[in-house]
Amino acid sequence: MAHVLGQNQYGKAENRIVRVYRDSTRHEIKDLNVSVALSGEFEDVHLTGSNANCLPTDTTKNTVYAFAKEHGIESAEAFGITLARHFVDDTAPVHRARIRIEEYAWERIRTPDSEARFIGSEEVGHSFVRSGQEVRTTEVVYDGESVRVISGLKDLVVLNSTNSEFWGYIKDRYTTLQEAYDRILATQVTARWKYGFTGRADEAEPAWNRCYTQVRRHLLEAFAETYSYSLQQTLHAMGTRVLDQRAEVDEVRLELPNKHHFLVDLEPFGLKNENEVYYAADRMYGLIEGTVHREGVVPVIPVA
Amino acid sequence: MAHVLGQNQYGKAENRIVRVYRDSTRHEIKDLNVSVALSGEFEDVHLTGSNANCLPTDTTKNTVYAFAKEHGIESAEAFGITLARHFVDDTAPVHRARIRIEEYAWERIRTPDSEARFIGSEEVGHSFVRSGQEVRTTEVVYDGESVRVISGLKDLVVLNSTNSEFWGYIKDRYTTLQEAYDRILATQVTARWKYGFTGRADEAEPAWNRCYTQVRRHLLEAFAETYSYSLQQTLHAMGTRVLDQRAEVDEVRLELPNKHHFLVDLEPFGLKNENEVYYAADRMYGLIEGTVHREGVVPVIPVA
Amino acid sequence: MAHVLGQNQYGKAENRIVRVYRDSTRHEIKDLNVSVALSGEFEDVHLTGSNANCLPTDTTKNTVYAFAKEHGIESAEAFGITLARHFVDDTAPVHRARIRIEEYAWERIRTPDSEARFIGSEEVGHSFVRSGQEVRTTEVVYDGESVRVISGLKDLVVLNSTNSEFWGYIKDRYTTLQEAYDRILATQVTARWKYGFTGRADEAEPAWNRCYTQVRRHLLEAFAETYSYSLQQTLHAMGTRVLDQRAEVDEVRLELPNKHHFLVDLEPFGLKNENEVYYAADRMYGLIEGTVHREGVVPVIPVA
Amino acid sequence: MAHVLGQNQYGKAENRIVRVYRDSTRHEIKDLNVSVALSGEFEDVHLTGSNANCLPTDTTKNTVYAFAKEHGIESAEAFGITLARHFVDDTAPVHRARIRIEEYAWERIRTPDSEARFIGSEEVGHSFVRSGQEVRTTEVVYDGESVRVISGLKDLVVLNSTNSEFWGYIKDRYTTLQEAYDRILATQVTARWKYGFTGRADEAEPAWNRCYTQVRRHLLEAFAETYSYSLQQTLHAMGTRVLDQRAEVDEVRLELPNKHHFLVDLEPFGLKNENEVYYAADRMYGLIEGTVHREGVVPVIPVA
Repeated sequence: MAHVLGQNQYGKAENRIVRVYRDSTRHEIKDLNVSVALSGEFEDVHLTGSNANCLPTDTTKNTVYAFAKEHGIESAEAFGITLARHFVDDTAPVHRARIRIEEYAWERIRTPDSEARFIGSEEVGHSFVRSGQEVRTTEVVYDGESVRVISGLKDLVVLNSTNSEFWGYIKDRYTTLQEAYDRILATQVTARWKYGFTGRADEAEPAWNRCYTQVRRHLLEAFAETYSYSLQQTLHAMGTRVLDQRAEVDEVRLELPNKHHFLVDLEPFGLKNENEVYYAADRMYGLIEGTVHREGVVPVIPVA
Repeated sequence: MAHVLGQNQYGKAENRIVRVYRDSTRHEIKDLNVSVALSGEFEDVHLTGSNANCLPTDTTKNTVYAFAKEHGIESAEAFGITLARHFVDDTAPVHRARIRIEEYAWERIRTPDSEARFIGSEEVGHSFVRSGQEVRTTEVVYDGESVRVISGLKDLVVLNSTNSEFWGYIKDRYTTLQEAYDRILATQVTARWKYGFTGRADEAEPAWNRCYTQVRRHLLEAFAETYSYSLQQTLHAMGTRVLDQRAEVDEVRLELPNKHHFLVDLEPFGLKNENEVYYAADRMYGLIEGTVHREGVVPVIPVA
Repeated sequence: MAHVLGQNQYGKAENRIVRVYRDSTRHEIKDLNVSVALSGEFEDVHLTGSNANCLPTDTTKNTVYAFAKEHGIESAEAFGITLARHFVDDTAPVHRARIRIEEYAWERIRTPDSEARFIGSEEVGHSFVRSGQEVRTTEVVYDGESVRVISGLKDLVVLNSTNSEFWGYIKDRYTTLQEAYDRILATQVTARWKYGFTGRADEAEPAWNRCYTQVRRHLLEAFAETYSYSLQQTLHAMGTRVLDQRAEVDEVRLELPNKHHFLVDLEPFGLKNENEVYYAADRMYGLIEGTVHREGVVPVIPVA
Repeated sequence: MAHVLGQNQYGKAENRIVRVYRDSTRHEIKDLNVSVALSGEFEDVHLTGSNANCLPTDTTKNTVYAFAKEHGIESAEAFGITLARHFVDDTAPVHRARIRIEEYAWERIRTPDSEARFIGSEEVGHSFVRSGQEVRTTEVVYDGESVRVISGLKDLVVLNSTNSEFWGYIKDRYTTLQEAYDRILATQVTARWKYGFTGRADEAEPAWNRCYTQVRRHLLEAFAETYSYSLQQTLHAMGTRVLDQRAEVDEVRLELPNKHHFLVDLEPFGLKNENEVYYAADRMYGLIEGTVHREGVVPVIPVA
């Protein structure tokens, strides 16, 4: 019986690129990790060993670096769209391009006594310290007709030291958990959100950078403001907050590991632990995942 | 406009369990990492804060450990099926369970002068060294009707020091790659394969452990025996080899990073590098992914 | 010939502890990773199997958690000193204790519309986001007589996009490097500094937290302000800046990987790279390490 | 007050090199990670910005690759000695070189039906699978007069499922641990051993590869054969076994994390756990470290 070649894709992954803007004495930097995946007419490459249809992964890498010069990097999303359109529109056998980008944030080093000074209200300088909080992510897919942009963040670690309960759940033969009326709730947020934008000629691009900043803010605020009866409830509040506040977004998916903080039993030592001393566990952890989307929208962000 | 709660799931992830069989002086061990994800009627948990339908992640953890005693661990696949059936069949709001398992292999420590000796042709003993090659994986999904088993492996690093070429590819404005007629081909195999088995009452379970060993062997042999004109071609040879040799399997998906080994230019030092000295790069890397399936089978293994 | 038991130590490593202060509605948290290592009269434990002199690692763990309640955590250094003194002073066979601590920083989540508000000029609240930049470190050693405190930081990633050159170096048969007159200088700072404090009864403890903040500031400022002809020169400027500015510190050791940013050759694509587009490499990297200390001080921070 | 530049060193770290021997159709490969650190007359480099005495890290990297061709890689130790001698003997300002090497092991892929076949009793072929167990390590230091070689291994994970007890220890106010009369003992071995070899002209080099294999074997056998009353006792048995069996070695240092396997309490589920079901914890862990050396030898392996 014959075998069939199904979905396949290839490209250069994890192209680390730093783009410096030196237009004034106040430099700017963009620090990205770009991964390219191309699909199309690649049957021969797999079956016959002919590479006549194959754009080498090395060339996809070169294109990433060349485009950083030719087109600049205004935002990860805009850069991804430009790359994806190029691969599909300019290379016949390529029918679909997926560009994934991670972006690492940097802050300026403030040195009041030194050459870093202000021009108007803007600092100048060329020295940066990496801001280690979350990593910004985006995935752009272009199939020759429309663009799909799913942006997100990961590694954003948050903690509420109170206003979290968990009780009233199913009890079965394997239940030992005690109900909790005041616990720490901590998680490491992975979020992805889909933009309604599809790249039609008459469509305005969202303000990608501002939208990112605002989604991040709403996620943090919803986490902080929700009095929680479960991490599921907090997840739902975070997702709906984004949909409520950002019209550009029509679907949000969150993956929230419940980073357990266990109250340490200090009674054997004659001490009372009034929700003060916790053991922060690595594994195992609860893992809560869910999608919230606008009515009428077909959700597309895949389950991890 | 109303927001909709889409796909959601939860459970305890990364339950690390070691099961010791001490039936004779020749102990056996199974070393697993088990992750549970449940879907079902969980709207209230997200929307109202009521946990009446929520089986706590802590209970799913307890169940994993209890089942290791009650049912034993014959294979990761059989253990996953037993767990998945339990969660769906025995807990009303749970409609679907996904069990993911990683298994770590151990070998016996051979100590000829010591108490480790043979009974018949079998070694006895209680001392083990972890075999650090690949990690065995499985994912079992049960939805109340049928079972779906996708097994695999990851972190299997292989290298051919010759019999690999790459030339005849598309050249465009961004091409700089030189054609190669004898190169190192190295990759870190991630493989997933779907079994035809669906868990009907009249269906025999595959011999999971033997099948794993044989798929691994066929992947290695196909990698070694293929004279390669591209990693895509090698991928296809590996996938079809498994389908040819294992009737239980009807779909194979492979993710093969091209771990580049660059020939070092030794000419500045008056030396000739005859494919002897390579620099092994970490990043960037080519990433080749593809599915091969039997005709008539609808492929289900998701793209990573 | 007899064998000798040399230096040995043991204890519980990586005790992850989160201490919450809930004295007002404005909670505070401390997030530490504490490792204990004890030395002393442990020959019998190694040679005879008698544990009569052994304080179990489990007990050292319990002590860490109990002390977090009994003594609180004002700073990693003060907490480490209290623990070290206890183990040596209260357990006869223990002659020396080494406490290593990593501290992870958290910032408050600002939610202007919510319950997080100000009392006087202080924010209140219970919601935090982990600040992912550097990890703060300390190592306290107590031998029954005096205390030695070596504090530090790690994973502080910094970058100058100009003001760095490298030329005029030795050329030998294996030289291919081109001289550079304007390059990116980037590194991931690991710093350790020894305090002069020895824990005598009449000695005032340094203001550990303020000193940490200031050393960090001086490291950043010296990195930013130094026009660099080598990473060695920058290292020296950073170390001397700390000694100049902080009287409490008498020795500084720095480990500075040179995180190479290679200028991408865009000429094959008809483009000119005017120090704008860089490839950020992972490995290999230059590694520059050095100690700067006050005259008359015997340096003690070990080479990694 | 003047500041003093103390110990300093620099060089290229983590040069990943794969050396292929293609002398017959049976290829051989060596896979190393080489780090160079040089010390000497580098005051000016740090203080004045003059690089006249600086051999660039880039050149140290080139030398590693060139030497792999010129001198070959018989063993990590021999290769390290050749490199260290070169840097000190051939570059005036360099007074001391430290070469650290990690070596990754590979096994041949056996493909009975294919071109891999035997010549005499030796397999031929060019296909390899990485053997993921321990990483072999070495550190060579040469100061212009003598050589010091400290070799070792890391990431060797071992487990005894019985023959381990722990009781009779100190009880204090913070003790809660229950005594154990049959427990799992598991650890991830990091070992370093110093050779007596000093590189004098009349001294024979040890058979580095054979010695490595034998030390590894003795460590495993001593771990397996020791009925253990503490991990300290096992550590001591492992160290003395190596000294007893290998005359080339005069000092051994071991770092043994106690990878805790906690017996799961199954009684709430009506089950009895007869040392069969364990939870394998990541953190915290006991950490046991110690040196064993021959009488009269001054131990030099540093504490981690």
